[in-house]
Amino acid sequence: MADNVYDLAVIGSGPAGQKAAVAAAKLGKRVVVVDRREMIGGACIHTGTIPSKALREAILYLSGFRQRSFYGRDYTLQEQISVADLASRVRTVLERETEVVRTQLKRNRIEIVDGTARFADPHALDVETPSGRAIVHAAQILIACGTRPARSPNIPLDGRRAMDSDQLLGAEGLPKQMIVVGAGVIGLEYASMLTALGSTVTVIDQRPTILDFLDQEMIEALSYHMRRQGATFRLGETVIGVEHDTRGRVVARLESGKTVPGDALLYTVGRQGNTDTLDLDVVGIQVDTRGRIPVNGTYQTCVPHIYAAGDVIGFPALASTSMEQGRLAACHMFGLPCVSRPELLPYGVFSVPEISMVGRTEQELTKARIPYEVGVAKYAELARGQIIGDDIGFLKLLFHPETRQVLGVHVIGEGASEIVHIGQAVLTLGGTIEYFRDTVFNYPTLAEAYKVAALNGLNKL
Amino acid sequence: MADNVYDLAVIGSGPAGQKAAVAAAKLGKRVVVVDRREMIGGACIHTGTIPSKALREAILYLSGFRQRSFYGRDYTLQEQISVADLASRVRTVLERETEVVRTQLKRNRIEIVDGTARFADPHALDVETPSGRAIVHAAQILIACGTRPARSPNIPLDGRRAMDSDQLLGAEGLPKQMIVVGAGVIGLEYASMLTALGSTVTVIDQRPTILDFLDQEMIEALSYHMRRQGATFRLGETVIGVEHDTRGRVVARLESGKTVPGDALLYTVGRQGNTDTLDLDVVGIQVDTRGRIPVNGTYQTCVPHIYAAGDVIGFPALASTSMEQGRLAACHMFGLPCVSRPELLPYGVFSVPEISMVGRTEQELTKARIPYEVGVAKYAELARGQIIGDDIGFLKLLFHPETRQVLGVHVIGEGASEIVHIGQAVLTLGGTIEYFRDTVFNYPTLAEAYKVAALNGLNKL
Repeated sequence: MADNVYDLAVIGSGPAGQKAAVAAAKLGKRVVVVDRREMIGGACIHTGTIPSKALREAILYLSGFRQRSFYGRDYTLQEQISVADLASRVRTVLERETEVVRTQLKRNRIEIVDGTARFADPHALDVETPSGRAIVHAAQILIACGTRPARSPNIPLDGRRAMDSDQLLGAEGLPKQMIVVGAGVIGLEYASMLTALGSTVTVIDQRPTILDFLDQEMIEALSYHMRRQGATFRLGETVIGVEHDTRGRVVARLESGKTVPGDALLYTVGRQGNTDTLDLDVVGIQVDTRGRIPVNGTYQTCVPHIYAAGDVIGFPALASTSMEQGRLAACHMFGLPCVSRPELLPYGVFSVPEISMVGRTEQELTKARIPYEVGVAKYAELARGQIIGDDIGFLKLLFHPETRQVLGVHVIGEGASEIVHIGQAVLTLGGTIEYFRDTVFNYPTLAEAYKVAALNGLNKL
Repeated sequence: MADNVYDLAVIGSGPAGQKAAVAAAKLGKRVVVVDRREMIGGACIHTGTIPSKALREAILYLSGFRQRSFYGRDYTLQEQISVADLASRVRTVLERETEVVRTQLKRNRIEIVDGTARFADPHALDVETPSGRAIVHAAQILIACGTRPARSPNIPLDGRRAMDSDQLLGAEGLPKQMIVVGAGVIGLEYASMLTALGSTVTVIDQRPTILDFLDQEMIEALSYHMRRQGATFRLGETVIGVEHDTRGRVVARLESGKTVPGDALLYTVGRQGNTDTLDLDVVGIQVDTRGRIPVNGTYQTCVPHIYAAGDVIGFPALASTSMEQGRLAACHMFGLPCVSRPELLPYGVFSVPEISMVGRTEQELTKARIPYEVGVAKYAELARGQIIGDDIGFLKLLFHPETRQVLGVHVIGEGASEIVHIGQAVLTLGGTIEYFRDTVFNYPTLAEAYKVAALNGLNKL
């Protein structure tokens, strides 16, 4: 076998690419990953998930946000939270994480080609490397090239006063008044972080509602708390232009005639697939207007040996689900049976407060005409909630009133993305709500919310 | 029925008493709880679990402990952490928690008699209340009177330089050099908190090993990290006397001839049951040297209608297990079927770093000749571990190499007492280690440790 012939070539080293490569390597396959050296780990590490979560953690800590119910709303640990503090914190995490990915690929004997790939033919990639061109041949190919922030001709971004989420991380100074255009997961995560830092934020979206995949009650709780922190929502409104006034401020002009002024504007309306440089026409794959690739249930494109996974195939575009897609794609291409149960996927939104869910929402159950009962536990009722000063959080269990099967778990507040996995295990293994009633939980913990919610729900029957 | 005749009288309003009272009330029983007004909630709220955990949270936050791997070991948020900061934080939590307990009892129409109870006869309690004596008659009685710190004639406590855990919470100033006598859960929790605050701590215990109910590897990890923070362990050593030197310091004199100096000494060698004022001889119940009451598997004393639960019956004396004992006792006394699965009880030790476990330890499995394999995930390998700067933590899964049944879950590090419940659900519902391999976890979370540990373990087969 020639040096440059592989069982699998992966375009992109983000969560989907990594997990596909590792899964194939563990099956004894010869695998190569093509990505630019400085981008190992993908947007997840460099511009997306990790930097935003590291920034979030630094903000929650340095702003004293978590402690406000004890020490008062004006309590901040450092009078001036410097951008250098935040940036250095984030950089440390990125460097360590990149090293973790690189080590994992190496340990599995996966080759890494430093460069940018394009299709030469359906089984060959032409890679532009720092030392010239290289051809990679592969029986199977996975496109996991990710996405970048989308742009709009109406909203020119200068990277200083008007920026996208990638540019925000390099911004100097924290704006006192921020305009966030686009209320998707990314927009709301940043908007709520900025409100936690004390900025006044206006969130604008042309859709009338936000985060439709979540349970309505969770969305309302998030909106309520963001408003209490000084956020304004302008939903069902379209930005038709952005101007700079004489005082150097940004002004967003809305179709409805309103104007929204701010020190800076963050544009987070969707993401654009990095497919434009792949020469997909060579293999006959068509992308949508956002540059996204359509796939079937086993992550195959219209060309059966070419798969796509991760952000480039669209919703939900979370690191966790992208990893799973990568793994499933690799299993399918090499004939390994692999069960996928998408109804058991957890969703995590790292807003402030954070939200996580698994299973169905009240809206979905109502639509499907599945009867349900609800059990709720407020964090304020839990000793642990009081100790950490979270008077916002709550957990909601949805269960079938007859079979008592758990149907959905919805959490907002500190640790939501962690403790949702307790409910996920019970849901997956077919447990009933009685499990939570009969289980002993460590005291004091947030996990106790399950017991409190179960008792609350069972009392309603 | 006369006013003072009840189906159940509960002595003590701590976790065991509360849950027994509520369980009986939900069955429609007439219930009274006897406790002193200022002690509603028991030692759990006033001197034990809650104050120590609130103190711990305040210490971790104000000392910047969680952030040291980013900002360096010398980074503290406040140059001088004032005792007033800690005390005010703790007081707020206690007040709120007491109110929660009081409300819960009232909502369930449970009567509260303010006073101290003693047995008048096997079905009557003589209660000394602020307004005189009252007699309470009851068909069933639960003794949930709790414990207090034990004392030793060799070690006189003045409450200032030499104190027990109750007195520590009222202490002024933080000792730079602390002697902790007694390396049980309470002793180690405080000792590790003090090391986190930068105090130099010497832990002395006459037993050669500590926390024997935990997995050996977790104990070693805790010892290692406490030593790294400046703790010294003197195990297998007996304190024969305590003196005060001319500089106002405390000196513990050990049987081995060593002397250990410090600014203060904390004495945490066991707890003494609050049974001495109950007139137990009236009903013929005998206590052990620690004032503890022997019970059978259904929490009955030698007098079948008199039950005992909580700290007063001994190990494990955790709030979580005491609640369960109270509930089980109430179910048994009123003939309600109630399943108890002690092998699924979680254990949480709120040391710094915290430790939690469920299921069996390596030592237990070896002794029982049950073969097992081990899967480990270090927090440092997890994106979330890096974001929060926990380079100490790890999770260990023990599973059967053939059936792949999960046998034990052991966690040390941030969030251990929360995420152990994910493993507990899988253990309880009979899941295998493949559950963790096949499940999608939110990213980045500590819960991901389960997946990493499962892959690590399965790779060894």
